[in-house]
Amino acid sequence: MVVNGKHYKAVWFENHIVHMIDQRSLPFQFRITTAEGYLQTCVAIRNMTVRGAGTIGAAAGFAMAQAFLESHGRRDFIESAKIDIGNTRPTAHDLFHAIDRVHQAGMAAWNDGDPDKAFEAAEKEALKMADRYITAARSIGEHGKSLIKDGMNILTHCNAGWLALVDYGSALSPVYRAFEEGKRLHVWVDETRPRNQGGRLTAWELYHQGIPHTIIPDHAAASLMAKGAVDMVITGADRIAANGDTANKIGTFEKALLAREFGIPFYVAAPWSTFDQHCPTGAGIPIEERSAEEVTHASGIDKEGTVREIQILNPGSSVYNPAFDLTPARLITAFITERGVFSKVEECLNLL
Amino acid sequence: MVVNGKHYKAVWFENHIVHMIDQRSLPFQFRITTAEGYLQTCVAIRNMTVRGAGTIGAAAGFAMAQAFLESHGRRDFIESAKIDIGNTRPTAHDLFHAIDRVHQAGMAAWNDGDPDKAFEAAEKEALKMADRYITAARSIGEHGKSLIKDGMNILTHCNAGWLALVDYGSALSPVYRAFEEGKRLHVWVDETRPRNQGGRLTAWELYHQGIPHTIIPDHAAASLMAKGAVDMVITGADRIAANGDTANKIGTFEKALLAREFGIPFYVAAPWSTFDQHCPTGAGIPIEERSAEEVTHASGIDKEGTVREIQILNPGSSVYNPAFDLTPARLITAFITERGVFSKVEECLNLL
Repeated sequence: MVVNGKHYKAVWFENHIVHMIDQRSLPFQFRITTAEGYLQTCVAIRNMTVRGAGTIGAAAGFAMAQAFLESHGRRDFIESAKIDIGNTRPTAHDLFHAIDRVHQAGMAAWNDGDPDKAFEAAEKEALKMADRYITAARSIGEHGKSLIKDGMNILTHCNAGWLALVDYGSALSPVYRAFEEGKRLHVWVDETRPRNQGGRLTAWELYHQGIPHTIIPDHAAASLMAKGAVDMVITGADRIAANGDTANKIGTFEKALLAREFGIPFYVAAPWSTFDQHCPTGAGIPIEERSAEEVTHASGIDKEGTVREIQILNPGSSVYNPAFDLTPARLITAFITERGVFSKVEECLNLL
Repeated sequence: MVVNGKHYKAVWFENHIVHMIDQRSLPFQFRITTAEGYLQTCVAIRNMTVRGAGTIGAAAGFAMAQAFLESHGRRDFIESAKIDIGNTRPTAHDLFHAIDRVHQAGMAAWNDGDPDKAFEAAEKEALKMADRYITAARSIGEHGKSLIKDGMNILTHCNAGWLALVDYGSALSPVYRAFEEGKRLHVWVDETRPRNQGGRLTAWELYHQGIPHTIIPDHAAASLMAKGAVDMVITGADRIAANGDTANKIGTFEKALLAREFGIPFYVAAPWSTFDQHCPTGAGIPIEERSAEEVTHASGIDKEGTVREIQILNPGSSVYNPAFDLTPARLITAFITERGVFSKVEECLNLL
């Protein structure tokens, strides 16, 4: 998408270096940061410099390619790097999907007797995967846009915009396309505690695209729905099990329950790489727990524009900070994918 | 309750001056602030130096008494002050209840031909009301404690502890009593965006009473409930309509819907002064909207312990910040009041 007149992706690979929009400093600073080796890329994924299913996937693919370059022909280095990258974020399926694909491509070249070509093969695959996310995101927008009728109010949770899927986005891609076509629409943006990806990133994206939107405290959704002020809910996904159970940002499950209560359609938008055929149900998806500090502390800018971190909650109290929750398939109206909109997950999996 | 070895109430009246624990500076600073005239007390209610249904009620009663003192026999001054105090927080019923009672007591003395005694009568009534809150809070604890079984996990939203009801609390009073009696229990504390009264005030109260508790992001409740980690929900109330519909902190309605979904009892704890017989249903309760800054900005302390306010969300985005929502009576298992636990609001109203 365009920022300050220039087209950007959320993450890209150039001269063996991973370039990333630093999502921790948004919306207050637009900064590009770089990772010169796979371990640096791992740190960036882990500390959420980059985040969002597809952007994590692309970054992990690049990290895997970097590992081939850094391996200097040592196979154990590759295998250990593969584990390191996989350990950065346990819930996101795109991460493992990308690591596997890039690892496989590199090892195929290696096994063909040419370890020197392994990096080239891995890099090629990683670049292809990043491009595929973009193509997928654009198609998700094409398929999803017709669900959005003129005048609709759309609720979204967390950030599943272009920052989260290299470009265009998953949940926001249909919103961007519908808006481009001249439909009047308005987006309710859950601020999405504790890291506020909704109020910081989704709001920033929509603001820069000129799309009418309003940030709400996360638990204000029920009263809006009761008033008829929400026509549909669209979220992204971090992993979708074979039965359609979906892991996504903590709070998604609550929104899905509320949507059913009020008869509002609840859509999950995701590329194929987010579907995990090897995971039969949501029970098999590991849920990442993150640090208490994400809840007890907040970062932002003071009146002088200086970035500061402050403690906002009671010192000494315990904190539980699960990064994701599980939305059972029965609460999901349909999946918006790059191959179409499917109300049953089986229809998606048949096409995989 | 006891803080630093000394017994405190959330608000008290001494030498015509309203004394308040400044709830905006908690949990980082324990400060007593004062209001020497009724307008200063209005500011303190409005800016949430004091908050919580009963504490607002007591403060409003004191403000009304102060107005009698400041009136110097001008009846129009009294009437205009009554309107000013009523305009501070539109949703809280205790506020209007207290203003009316104190106004009535003062005017009765006045109409008896002695305007000079009006302040004394008003002050006496205001002090009596503040004491009644304390007695009511203690009784709520006595009646509610038997609902809490050994080993239970209790979820609460916002702060309905002693800070909110002069002393002891409404929702937390049964928790304090059950804990005193040696029951093992654990409290899940919704942080309660946007002002974080859960993570700042409830957590601070429980921490100082040594009660096991864990702060959670507000929308983590559904996943805890799905896991069976919540045995009951208790919240306070800002106003209860004649049919039992309850206005309370934004997010309460979501918790009530979730509790029903998972078959978890949902209790509202409140003194009689929170019941509004003149309001037939929740539709008649005005819902206060507060400023965008409460959502977009956060306050707390930096590493050096300096109190700072920072902007945390995207500048330029619209914000919707309703302070309360409405929980329909059908979602409420029972009301915990100073006269007993009642599953039907009619039973409460018959006793009014």
